[in-house]
Amino acid sequence: MIINVGLRSFYDSLRAQGADAIHVEWRPPAGGDLELARLLSDLDSPEIDSANLRAVEKILNSKPVLMDVKPAIEVVPKMTELTILHSGLPIEWKRMCGPMRGAVIGALLYEGLAKDEKEAEKLAMSEKIDFSPCHHHRAVGPMAGVISSSMPVFIVENQRHKNRAYCTINEGLGKVLRFGAYDREVLKRLSWMRDALGPALGVAVKHSGGIDLKVLISQALQMGDECHNRNAAGTSLFLNEIMPHFLGSDLDKKTINDVVRFIYGNRQFFLNLSMPACKATLDAVRGIKNCTLVSAMARNGVDFGIQVSGLDDRWFTSPAEVPKGLYFPGYGEGDANPDLGDSSITETAGLGGFAMATAPAIVQFIGGAQEDAVGYTREMYEITLTENKSFALPNLGFRGTPTGIDLRKVLDTGIMPIINTGIAHKQAGVGQIGAGILRAPLGCFKKALVAMSKC
Amino acid sequence: MIINVGLRSFYDSLRAQGADAIHVEWRPPAGGDLELARLLSDLDSPEIDSANLRAVEKILNSKPVLMDVKPAIEVVPKMTELTILHSGLPIEWKRMCGPMRGAVIGALLYEGLAKDEKEAEKLAMSEKIDFSPCHHHRAVGPMAGVISSSMPVFIVENQRHKNRAYCTINEGLGKVLRFGAYDREVLKRLSWMRDALGPALGVAVKHSGGIDLKVLISQALQMGDECHNRNAAGTSLFLNEIMPHFLGSDLDKKTINDVVRFIYGNRQFFLNLSMPACKATLDAVRGIKNCTLVSAMARNGVDFGIQVSGLDDRWFTSPAEVPKGLYFPGYGEGDANPDLGDSSITETAGLGGFAMATAPAIVQFIGGAQEDAVGYTREMYEITLTENKSFALPNLGFRGTPTGIDLRKVLDTGIMPIINTGIAHKQAGVGQIGAGILRAPLGCFKKALVAMSKC
Repeated sequence: MIINVGLRSFYDSLRAQGADAIHVEWRPPAGGDLELARLLSDLDSPEIDSANLRAVEKILNSKPVLMDVKPAIEVVPKMTELTILHSGLPIEWKRMCGPMRGAVIGALLYEGLAKDEKEAEKLAMSEKIDFSPCHHHRAVGPMAGVISSSMPVFIVENQRHKNRAYCTINEGLGKVLRFGAYDREVLKRLSWMRDALGPALGVAVKHSGGIDLKVLISQALQMGDECHNRNAAGTSLFLNEIMPHFLGSDLDKKTINDVVRFIYGNRQFFLNLSMPACKATLDAVRGIKNCTLVSAMARNGVDFGIQVSGLDDRWFTSPAEVPKGLYFPGYGEGDANPDLGDSSITETAGLGGFAMATAPAIVQFIGGAQEDAVGYTREMYEITLTENKSFALPNLGFRGTPTGIDLRKVLDTGIMPIINTGIAHKQAGVGQIGAGILRAPLGCFKKALVAMSKC
Repeated sequence: MIINVGLRSFYDSLRAQGADAIHVEWRPPAGGDLELARLLSDLDSPEIDSANLRAVEKILNSKPVLMDVKPAIEVVPKMTELTILHSGLPIEWKRMCGPMRGAVIGALLYEGLAKDEKEAEKLAMSEKIDFSPCHHHRAVGPMAGVISSSMPVFIVENQRHKNRAYCTINEGLGKVLRFGAYDREVLKRLSWMRDALGPALGVAVKHSGGIDLKVLISQALQMGDECHNRNAAGTSLFLNEIMPHFLGSDLDKKTINDVVRFIYGNRQFFLNLSMPACKATLDAVRGIKNCTLVSAMARNGVDFGIQVSGLDDRWFTSPAEVPKGLYFPGYGEGDANPDLGDSSITETAGLGGFAMATAPAIVQFIGGAQEDAVGYTREMYEITLTENKSFALPNLGFRGTPTGIDLRKVLDTGIMPIINTGIAHKQAGVGQIGAGILRAPLGCFKKALVAMSKC
């Protein structure tokens, strides 16, 4: 009997020659990086395992419910009329990427704080505007993630742990603020969302007494959505769920009809509900001592950052990379902005790229083959702590989604979290030019591990 | 070099011994039945191939559109106040199975033709009632398939070939007429469907100018429906599609709300749209000389019957069998009625059991494992003439659904069409007790082949 450890090809040769052999799956930890291997060995402790177990439990029993829709200034913590929230980690105006600048310009015009592009840029450059990441305000925003004071936001409450999360309403695809566009059409739509859509949604959501987003996500996963780049089912189900509350309210038929057409016309509408549902879930595990669970992954279009439960609200960063993807006609990789947005909160919670197995249709949109979709999910089980049985994947025999990224497992295996994403043009004002897929960069995980070892 | 024909295990042994061998996939045609093999050889003709090609073309370019909703008596051909349509092939009262009798009793009560169960049975036994299969009236009905004069029916037009098909509106699951239940609750619901639901749907559908069912089926297949036993996505999409037309019409909010709640509360609602869409598609290929394509498979709970394009409206029959399935608590196979209903029109058109690969979630409802779902669809490619690219299956790399059952291929391979189905209690009045899966019986296919060879 021969025991083979390491390269599988030796074992295969032995077997081909008829030898009696067994193969042990083994790779050097931390890809052979001795310092990392030592840190990982230090972090192989029952205290950490126990903290992680507690965190996982809190994630699995979370219950995110849509409670209301209100203007950001009324509900988002520390929001002022001069606050502009953005995606990712902190960044000042002069380092912001094109699409984020475009979205900021759009927001300043929309709020009436500037009367044209020039004035908006000048104001943004001044000290008057308080730029701050959504994540610092219990909020998340897709792509540029800009939230200004009068924008209506979804209020999602994790009813199990009593924390709340906020997110704007999805505008649609193409030329939209979150992808950096800010022309008349974009601003007109934002005004209508503030004046008609937001209030109508607020009335209906309140009429419903709360819409259970965990149930909707669970159903959407059975219907080919991974709840990041494919939200066709979630959107359809949400609309069905809220319809009786539109009809049961005092809203007039014309208003209801406008709102219904807008929602049904935008198959990504549910993204802005999936995101705060994930945020409300993950915020419940912030600040657990010794916990190596990744509580956020976010990108501002320049830097990629992660946060880790046991390290509170500290960011660990790497340069943001450009996704591999499919581009709209006339655009290519040279036009693409690096990875952008808080929407990777879905992957952090086990959806999006982590749940690709359920959404083979998405490879038509982001590139790749159907087998890849299943392969990505299988891989993510290697770096996560548990499987979420509430989110069953039919294509994997109803296995739960891979949930709870363990910083240690990522570095031990060298398997980086997979993220699928929209792609913005790198210049302000253009908008979406494609969609694609990429891996979280290794560097920020290494930095977090070093910090964790010093706790 | 050794060439192995037939049993693959010989080839595997040769290869294991290092021999240079190739394997040729071959099974004796018609399972070694010499008479069948001779008939199949006679039917191996360019005339038949060419007729089948024409039929396939007509199926692929069909465009079923929901046009209106009206009482059966106003639109279904040869319908009278004393006509009761039922599923499957012709059958007289005394041979009818329990659930079909139950549905007939219910229909006679609902139409006011009898005042109680006894009177209804007496009337059914008399010569006054004209029993006739739905299929003889360009209609289809799930399970007992009973259509009486005042029931509202969907009117689906194949806009490419100008033929129309009809189907009742789905009542929901459990205690419903089509599963043989006829108590007060069932009759009250049918009256509401006649007085409120049907007219409201008619108004909205007319307001829409027609709802393209091919597009909805295509989307639903991307969302885990096979459009026979799983219709969650189709129902949701249909509701979203028709909503603006409810809201844009003169209907009041209360009526719209009642209708919306009813539709959303019944995830099988779309079955009764999928079925006439398939019927309208397949009726376009009836009566093509020399064509061996199966144009209908239907069951009346006693007999299983098929029709073949080149043999016009003749039925070829075998005894109906009991599906293997999962039962509601308290019920088992001993309670089950044999296979029942026109819903196998979906399989005949390449959906249902033929499209199981896209609906792994359905195995939770009808039994079996996720791999089985993909396996069934793969097998059905062996007995069909083409793949319908409008109905792409994400789980099979976007391959089209296996479409157009060729009588010859079925008998040549011995692979019988797979059907998934609801299961009714064998006694009148009980209702649905489970759901399952079965194969079409061989006998009726053999009889049709014999008839075809005499053409």
